[in-house]
Amino acid sequence: MSFPDDLSAAAIAVAGRLATALDALPPSRVRDAMGHALHGGKCLRGYLVLESCALHDVDRARALSAAAAIEAMHAYSLVHDDLPAMDDDAMRRGRPTVHIAYDEATAILAGDALQTLAFELCAQTGDAALTGALARAAGAQGMVLGQALDIEAETAPEPLTLDQIVHLQQGKTGALFGWSCTAGPMLAGADTAPLSAYAEALGLAFQIADDILDTEGDAATAGKRLQKDAEAGKATFVSLLGLQAAKHRAAGLISQACDALSPYGARADSLRQAARFVISRDR
Amino acid sequence: MSFPDDLSAAAIAVAGRLATALDALPPSRVRDAMGHALHGGKCLRGYLVLESCALHDVDRARALSAAAAIEAMHAYSLVHDDLPAMDDDAMRRGRPTVHIAYDEATAILAGDALQTLAFELCAQTGDAALTGALARAAGAQGMVLGQALDIEAETAPEPLTLDQIVHLQQGKTGALFGWSCTAGPMLAGADTAPLSAYAEALGLAFQIADDILDTEGDAATAGKRLQKDAEAGKATFVSLLGLQAAKHRAAGLISQACDALSPYGARADSLRQAARFVISRDR
Repeated sequence: MSFPDDLSAAAIAVAGRLATALDALPPSRVRDAMGHALHGGKCLRGYLVLESCALHDVDRARALSAAAAIEAMHAYSLVHDDLPAMDDDAMRRGRPTVHIAYDEATAILAGDALQTLAFELCAQTGDAALTGALARAAGAQGMVLGQALDIEAETAPEPLTLDQIVHLQQGKTGALFGWSCTAGPMLAGADTAPLSAYAEALGLAFQIADDILDTEGDAATAGKRLQKDAEAGKATFVSLLGLQAAKHRAAGLISQACDALSPYGARADSLRQAARFVISRDR
Repeated sequence: MSFPDDLSAAAIAVAGRLATALDALPPSRVRDAMGHALHGGKCLRGYLVLESCALHDVDRARALSAAAAIEAMHAYSLVHDDLPAMDDDAMRRGRPTVHIAYDEATAILAGDALQTLAFELCAQTGDAALTGALARAAGAQGMVLGQALDIEAETAPEPLTLDQIVHLQQGKTGALFGWSCTAGPMLAGADTAPLSAYAEALGLAFQIADDILDTEGDAATAGKRLQKDAEAGKATFVSLLGLQAAKHRAAGLISQACDALSPYGARADSLRQAARFVISRDR
């Protein structure tokens, strides 16, 4: 199968696991809003979990719980990032954001409950250490820290430096990528180093590609508002490096990511394909 | 020791555990806001965890992790409940709420990171089942559901019935009380039934006492705005039962809670004291 087919298959399997989890909740407006938020993602993080688990022969049910967990976590972060007090976005994944489709209180609660669901699903792997690692990736030493630095950057007197942006993105995007890629070896009690190195390069390349898309892409294809960093006068990889150098840097990181997979040999070819896809135009 | 001394001792121990967890985070405005939110709680839920663990001879370090987890979870729920889009409160625990002392974006993120911290601390017990139970208590089948029902009640055409309020409070308050009281037997692999029954009666009595305080108390002692349910025209235990019958109902529930502890004999006397304190005027 090609990578887009693999990704679709992962998205379908993870959506099924999430639908089962939502169906187990009592009916409520918040549950509906959670469903809205989970709809239509590409499931890249869930795919990475499933691949990393497959490389380590992790039981499929546990792998799916972990993959569904990271997609619930990602969805929660988007719902809260889109709130009026945060990025104030009206469109996400080609549809109205949760606070537009429902209301702000429901969006806050739906985000909260999606985070809770992420931990519930993760705990279903039976692995408390994996759950602890998910918390460290998501919390004020990981994703939330990156988000907080991003918000502070908006009112900072000087645009961020390249090092500061790398640090911010390691939190905002890198931490969940890192957890996703190492979930397999963590569940199998194996060495996480190769997939951790892969994830670090991949996460940074992904964010550079996002900045490139923000400059070159169109909103209809992306399913969200673009060029908002430039409008806000925020430094990005593109504004700091220039478009060509940013593309070159992203390509270099993808080579680095693929090289990190060498201990797995050809078994990791689908993760290499995934890495190349991440910086392609039509992701 | 008397119950207020026991509670203070628990609050000091749990605050120490939480301070260690916060110190391990990189410095940030969000971390400061998390500290603000954790400050000054009575630590009733943390106390219940410690007592329930002591009754089952759970290792002190694991008990403290679980107690700190539930206080972080409770603090997150207060930060988000106080947001302008939710209850819009400016005062909590006698101090400005987080979105007043900091700003709304920081309050959203600090609440998010406190929930994450709760799961990180819970995972440190090494017990994935306890972590799963915490998620079920906090999520859209527990606390968040109760909060959502509470918000829906504000715009409902009819005031809630007594049954509906009991259901709402079982989510909003009861679920975390239930987890707190059963953390000990869960960690020890023992029967949770007696402490579960205790928690159910205690949680309901607590909420009735809260409604009574809302009617009779003064804001300075309570450290928060009062009479807001009456102002909002919301049904409460007091509005539905009348003040005297509400007090009678609370007292009956406390007897029921104490009776549920009979398998523990005199060893559970401090939990009996705690139950009586919950409906006393000066809590």
